[in-house]
Amino acid sequence: MKSQTSFNLDQYLERVGARVNKALDHLLPPERSAPATIHKAMRYSVFAGGKRIRPVLCLAACEAVGGQSTAAMSLACAVECIHTYSLVHDDLPCMDDDDFRRGKPTNHKIFGEGIAVLAGDALLTEAFALVAKAKPPKRYPVRTLVKELAFAAGSLRLIAGQVQDLEAENKRSTLNTVKQIHLNKTAALITTSIRLGAMAGNTAPAQLKRLTRYGQDLGLAFQVIDDILDATSTKEVMGKSVGADQKNQKSTFPSVLGIDKSRQFASDLIADANAQLHNFDKHAEPLRAIADFFLTRQH
Amino acid sequence: MKSQTSFNLDQYLERVGARVNKALDHLLPPERSAPATIHKAMRYSVFAGGKRIRPVLCLAACEAVGGQSTAAMSLACAVECIHTYSLVHDDLPCMDDDDFRRGKPTNHKIFGEGIAVLAGDALLTEAFALVAKAKPPKRYPVRTLVKELAFAAGSLRLIAGQVQDLEAENKRSTLNTVKQIHLNKTAALITTSIRLGAMAGNTAPAQLKRLTRYGQDLGLAFQVIDDILDATSTKEVMGKSVGADQKNQKSTFPSVLGIDKSRQFASDLIADANAQLHNFDKHAEPLRAIADFFLTRQH
Repeated sequence: MKSQTSFNLDQYLERVGARVNKALDHLLPPERSAPATIHKAMRYSVFAGGKRIRPVLCLAACEAVGGQSTAAMSLACAVECIHTYSLVHDDLPCMDDDDFRRGKPTNHKIFGEGIAVLAGDALLTEAFALVAKAKPPKRYPVRTLVKELAFAAGSLRLIAGQVQDLEAENKRSTLNTVKQIHLNKTAALITTSIRLGAMAGNTAPAQLKRLTRYGQDLGLAFQVIDDILDATSTKEVMGKSVGADQKNQKSTFPSVLGIDKSRQFASDLIADANAQLHNFDKHAEPLRAIADFFLTRQH
Repeated sequence: MKSQTSFNLDQYLERVGARVNKALDHLLPPERSAPATIHKAMRYSVFAGGKRIRPVLCLAACEAVGGQSTAAMSLACAVECIHTYSLVHDDLPCMDDDDFRRGKPTNHKIFGEGIAVLAGDALLTEAFALVAKAKPPKRYPVRTLVKELAFAAGSLRLIAGQVQDLEAENKRSTLNTVKQIHLNKTAALITTSIRLGAMAGNTAPAQLKRLTRYGQDLGLAFQVIDDILDATSTKEVMGKSVGADQKNQKSTFPSVLGIDKSRQFASDLIADANAQLHNFDKHAEPLRAIADFFLTRQH
């Protein structure tokens, strides 16, 4: 699809997504490395057709602040490893118990639960190895990047969101609770993907602050839209089980706000996200187009 | 117990172990941090009475090369987080399915499987946050330390060992296979604990090479002795289920070598470990005493 400007997002996503895939293939241990099982399992989920939203945002943020996106590539791959690990563990029978993800059987359905736990562990560990490979500018040394990723992925953000999500099952939650869960579970890693890319591009602190708010808006909007799609779409379109939220009696944005108000909320968030980019030049075109795309995506 | 020298290992282990416990308590998120469940679960396993072998080795290695052990404290805590996470996941029903660890119910018996998976994930993530807190000398920047830990904890070492261990169940393994499993599953993290401590103490490369071999010997000996104890001790002495290896039909050093030859193998490894320390001065006394202690431990 095209955004309102002449920028072609489809081409951009395809081109940058292909670069991310190539880098992931190059950077992850090959399948033949012993023990082959774990490397097959890691690669199975990493290459199961993810949209690469987080790594693309990471690279786009690096460009938006005037950096060369190659400088952010190992960080882009790191956030994708974190995202994939969180899905593999989230799908386990003791968590959300999902059999399908992106149209394919989940990791534990193919490799068994034990290997799925370990494949998630290995991807989480690999993410930090990838951060250590980054060559960031002096203002943002590897120490800063590791802290950033560990915080976003840790028990106060991403994992906090998973726990809050587990604890909210079979309960009626308020809008604030649902927001809090998804600020942690979804928006934190999306925000950090953007921040890491901007840091690799040697962002000025004022830009970083704007991009952080852009990321939080975008991340929350992403989840609102995901919830709407889960409530209204079909397995064929989504490539994963739908109606899972209702099955697990999870409180979602549609369940606390209704569908119409949820759509309005997402639209307001995207407007606020785009407002953060006013002072950025044409290098922020991909970030603008991605925000618009989020609002209109169907899967 | 006393080693052959006048060095009092009991006092050393007690003193340094207490410093490690204090640092862990200070560095890990407090129980009251939301969501409380995950922080309680993380702390439950971290403070379940571990012997702190790896952090003590980390600090002792820092001293052995002439460093101040405070420089290695956050790294010492990081390796203990990695060790604890690996136990929490290893104990899960889909892995070794253990109900007791260090005389207490395992994490998932108290908090449920979902939280136990997440508590392990959170400790693994926290380990890298702790590495980012280290203030290493110029020769060994944070980038190097992160690479070191990620490699030892990753799919080519610690996790490789877990996978090989799962795959070896109900099979008759050779001595070489059993060695390979435990070089990965046990010795890699012990070796890296020592290497990280030495790096924090600004070790010379030649010393680091010696300490690496010391660590590999010690790590392998640790597992040989663990296997002997699992085959010959009682739950009361060990504080965990014994005979588990036989129950899970795991190949162990006693099962491929017999008890007597396993004891001789452990003794040879410890002799080789101590030989690596010949050119170190009195600051290596703790490392010497720990090697001797490994050989004689009863639990």
